[in-house]
Amino acid sequence: MSKRPIIIDTDPGIDDALALAIALFSEELDVRLITTVAGNVSLENVTLNTLRLLNFYGKDVPVAKGAAEPLLAEFVDASNIHGKTGMEGYDFPEPQEELLLPEHAVNAMRRTIMESPEPITLVPIATLTNIALLFAMYPEVKGNIREIVMMGGSASRGNKGVMSEFNIATDPEAAQMVFQSGVPIVMAGLDVGLKALVYPEDSEEIRTMGKVGDMAYHMFKRYRGGSFNTGLKMYDSCAIAYLLCPELFEVVETYVGVELRGAMTAGCTVVDLRGYLHREPNARVCIDVDGEKFRRWFKNAVSKCI
Amino acid sequence: MSKRPIIIDTDPGIDDALALAIALFSEELDVRLITTVAGNVSLENVTLNTLRLLNFYGKDVPVAKGAAEPLLAEFVDASNIHGKTGMEGYDFPEPQEELLLPEHAVNAMRRTIMESPEPITLVPIATLTNIALLFAMYPEVKGNIREIVMMGGSASRGNKGVMSEFNIATDPEAAQMVFQSGVPIVMAGLDVGLKALVYPEDSEEIRTMGKVGDMAYHMFKRYRGGSFNTGLKMYDSCAIAYLLCPELFEVVETYVGVELRGAMTAGCTVVDLRGYLHREPNARVCIDVDGEKFRRWFKNAVSKCI
Amino acid sequence: MSKRPIIIDTDPGIDDALALAIALFSEELDVRLITTVAGNVSLENVTLNTLRLLNFYGKDVPVAKGAAEPLLAEFVDASNIHGKTGMEGYDFPEPQEELLLPEHAVNAMRRTIMESPEPITLVPIATLTNIALLFAMYPEVKGNIREIVMMGGSASRGNKGVMSEFNIATDPEAAQMVFQSGVPIVMAGLDVGLKALVYPEDSEEIRTMGKVGDMAYHMFKRYRGGSFNTGLKMYDSCAIAYLLCPELFEVVETYVGVELRGAMTAGCTVVDLRGYLHREPNARVCIDVDGEKFRRWFKNAVSKCI
Amino acid sequence: MSKRPIIIDTDPGIDDALALAIALFSEELDVRLITTVAGNVSLENVTLNTLRLLNFYGKDVPVAKGAAEPLLAEFVDASNIHGKTGMEGYDFPEPQEELLLPEHAVNAMRRTIMESPEPITLVPIATLTNIALLFAMYPEVKGNIREIVMMGGSASRGNKGVMSEFNIATDPEAAQMVFQSGVPIVMAGLDVGLKALVYPEDSEEIRTMGKVGDMAYHMFKRYRGGSFNTGLKMYDSCAIAYLLCPELFEVVETYVGVELRGAMTAGCTVVDLRGYLHREPNARVCIDVDGEKFRRWFKNAVSKCI
Repeated sequence: MSKRPIIIDTDPGIDDALALAIALFSEELDVRLITTVAGNVSLENVTLNTLRLLNFYGKDVPVAKGAAEPLLAEFVDASNIHGKTGMEGYDFPEPQEELLLPEHAVNAMRRTIMESPEPITLVPIATLTNIALLFAMYPEVKGNIREIVMMGGSASRGNKGVMSEFNIATDPEAAQMVFQSGVPIVMAGLDVGLKALVYPEDSEEIRTMGKVGDMAYHMFKRYRGGSFNTGLKMYDSCAIAYLLCPELFEVVETYVGVELRGAMTAGCTVVDLRGYLHREPNARVCIDVDGEKFRRWFKNAVSKCI
Repeated sequence: MSKRPIIIDTDPGIDDALALAIALFSEELDVRLITTVAGNVSLENVTLNTLRLLNFYGKDVPVAKGAAEPLLAEFVDASNIHGKTGMEGYDFPEPQEELLLPEHAVNAMRRTIMESPEPITLVPIATLTNIALLFAMYPEVKGNIREIVMMGGSASRGNKGVMSEFNIATDPEAAQMVFQSGVPIVMAGLDVGLKALVYPEDSEEIRTMGKVGDMAYHMFKRYRGGSFNTGLKMYDSCAIAYLLCPELFEVVETYVGVELRGAMTAGCTVVDLRGYLHREPNARVCIDVDGEKFRRWFKNAVSKCI
Repeated sequence: MSKRPIIIDTDPGIDDALALAIALFSEELDVRLITTVAGNVSLENVTLNTLRLLNFYGKDVPVAKGAAEPLLAEFVDASNIHGKTGMEGYDFPEPQEELLLPEHAVNAMRRTIMESPEPITLVPIATLTNIALLFAMYPEVKGNIREIVMMGGSASRGNKGVMSEFNIATDPEAAQMVFQSGVPIVMAGLDVGLKALVYPEDSEEIRTMGKVGDMAYHMFKRYRGGSFNTGLKMYDSCAIAYLLCPELFEVVETYVGVELRGAMTAGCTVVDLRGYLHREPNARVCIDVDGEKFRRWFKNAVSKCI
Repeated sequence: MSKRPIIIDTDPGIDDALALAIALFSEELDVRLITTVAGNVSLENVTLNTLRLLNFYGKDVPVAKGAAEPLLAEFVDASNIHGKTGMEGYDFPEPQEELLLPEHAVNAMRRTIMESPEPITLVPIATLTNIALLFAMYPEVKGNIREIVMMGGSASRGNKGVMSEFNIATDPEAAQMVFQSGVPIVMAGLDVGLKALVYPEDSEEIRTMGKVGDMAYHMFKRYRGGSFNTGLKMYDSCAIAYLLCPELFEVVETYVGVELRGAMTAGCTVVDLRGYLHREPNARVCIDVDGEKFRRWFKNAVSKCI
């Protein structure tokens, strides 16, 4: 079986680091390009973190740097959660600078997509600025994209605003551009991310799984101290899990729009499960995940990162 | 112990009918006034229904007719759910016309509140148009209101729009006027209403509880056929349950605002459980209910309606 | 010829004082009721000012006090322009307290309208909170209202916000309730108010016209010092001028809506002169006035206030 | 004196055609690049029109094709005004295809800006999609841009919506991205465009000015038949006029924001001439033009297009 070609758009970030590891070590995925975007921390930091991770993982995948800011919204990062550099808590090797392409991420995505004989799957596990720019600049790429499998959004409450999830709320206009693009979308957001939990005993188990496991353990300990004990949320790995093991998820095809005008709800993903808006479906939304099976899948996936 | 004086603002509606019964037959509540407002069906119909119910229950409580339309929003009723008259499925006696006051509901509320030696509790189990008008016309009443215990809103998804609950979404501007009024508010919305379920075996039990139970059974059978089997939601009775048995509920004090500007989220109650908005709390929100205990409470309450 | 019965809703305010004088001394108008609303200054002050003016003018018209605050918007007065009390610059007699009705303005309007054999014209020269409440509480009054002739709004730029006029922007939701009420509306706003100018030589002339003229002169001197020389805007008198001398104005029948959702344009009256919105006309908008003729009319009108 | 290097972003369109002619034949301007964007008509048509005009004018300027659609708004062209192809009424030569660069307009702008020894002036006389994408993709270009001189916006009413001008309203989000970019902006919008009129006698004069004049005359006759007699509005030439003859204009430095949230005012340029919003100025706005002088300048400019 041939590997599925993907482009990962990311802003590491601790749970990005694990999602990247699982994707890079998977035998079923062919990571053709990694693009970076400001989000969890600044563009400079997320790009350096990506290059450090590739050195640490020993993987040679080209990296391209994307948008340093949202299209319209004021940029507010999540360094309160991920620490100033975005990946504190572990001593990583130097960034593998030679993997950094001179091209803008959007141009690198375009080239990678247009040159690929098979359609590419885009896997944004960060805010959607780069993907929105890609479609605005080069609508011709849509013809060679299989689908977008994203981490982002929520069918109910939020984690950046009362009703808005971090990746969407960071650049709501970009998100709406992606949702109205016509490209097939799978949305794995808080509805599954909040149930994709790793518990202390899992962390201890992961610690023994070689250097990636050891790194994960140490970052987990640092990342949101309290959550270590009550269950760490593996948001970004949900998107990778969907690629590798979609049967973990309950998925509903529906319309999703991004609220751009609300005074208190801007950035809310309006997931119309009951058809109130009478619009055509534009996404398949992961509304539930089997937490127990996810845990097992996750540990097994990390164990292969060697 | 003296009975707690309340005014119920309502739009019967089937679950309103049960909530009214429980309140009217309760030994702890003194229903001083019932006011009506267009909502589930037209103002004419909800007023006739109220007068019919009072005849049926044999209770002499003054009734005053209020707003026939929301302040600004276009009026869309729920006759698709409650039937054209709002209380189909049972053969009620004639409306007890002599209970209908010549006054407007807002004036009757004002008089009742101002004349009461003890502070009054307002119990709106309908859209908030009347309450908003009361505060706009007569802000002096606020001084003799103990609190508002309302059925309405949601901390997550909606049942009229994707993110908006019926009572709030019917008149979002009125709702926001109430939430910013400064009067203490208890909000019992979908978060508890969706768990306040009555199952088929409960309905059979209720059927044997005298004429109110028999009436309830027959309306339940008619009301949303399917729900009879999977669990009927006793939304409005949650507000009465809170008055009589607050320990059924988990309550959080927080800020609640009504989104008035969203293109797809207008009418959403933004319940800021995690403090994203940095505003002072203005409501106690029932975020959970013990469904099993509610069921028992509800059946016991109906059994007393004789 | 019988006099035309009107109700004036006002918030004096200096230009309100002149508009009231002209209406009260006119042989063609029958001022049945004056209602007050918070606007230029607080409700207490505008009511006192009205009662003072009636004493000064020697006119016995009942006065009723209305809304102390906008429906939803935060109340911001114009005491920066009108001074703290709203009518500084002249030593008025005591308020004629016995003219103050015990009723709420909205109830007094209702009674006055319903008791009148001929349809009443409403003349709001203030924010529209009272009128909106009147229609929300008592929609039956619409049947005996001839029309609303208001001072408010603008077909282009604003004077409270960039695109919003003071009376509308003070309570945008109330304004939209009035514009969508179905009652015939004449809107005289900034488009004519900015051209309804009184120059220093006019002021000197007015000064000689008896005690009302003398009062006007002294308040004009105080009111926006600079404008005395470049032309004082007689906003509120435009509404009275329209009643008495409509041929001064160029009027267009069109749709007017109030923007309620804009982040920077809330309170803008969207006057659809070119039919972009494809909605039915709901107002006749005074889009131009002959400034020279207005000046002459105004001085003549003041000269009769004796 | 060295010529001022500019990039024109355009969507011809009849008044674009004249603006282009004046810029291309001017001895003071060095048109380094022309970029196209969907607006008056489709991207294909505006690009073909540009290439036809260059052939007709005998000018070899590189052309690059940009955005085919607004970022978020639904694309609605102005073919009702400009005709289906955008330049009907004259028989143009074939498009000069060899001038079309293979690059995207945004990449061509970037290259042209970064390669230029002197800072470039951007002259968008169309909707701002390309300029917004340029800044989002390549913020580094801001360092070598002298200023943006745009045709677009209005300080009062609109010509696409009640309160919105065509170029801004076609892509309001792009416009706001440009206004908040930090790059110096000159805005020449409807406030001057509606006064930049060419009368029938001017058209007759222009007809005699060689082939460009003859072409202009014939397109003017076709373009909005009625306006030919009452005065044709030379919107786009205002931007060129500002470059060549800024003393024609009255200019005010102020804050300009684009309303993105209004239900009826989206796309309104909020030009805060009186400081209501308390924000730092971000634009110099042409609020008036001497129509008579503009006419003379325009005819003189066209006469040089040989």
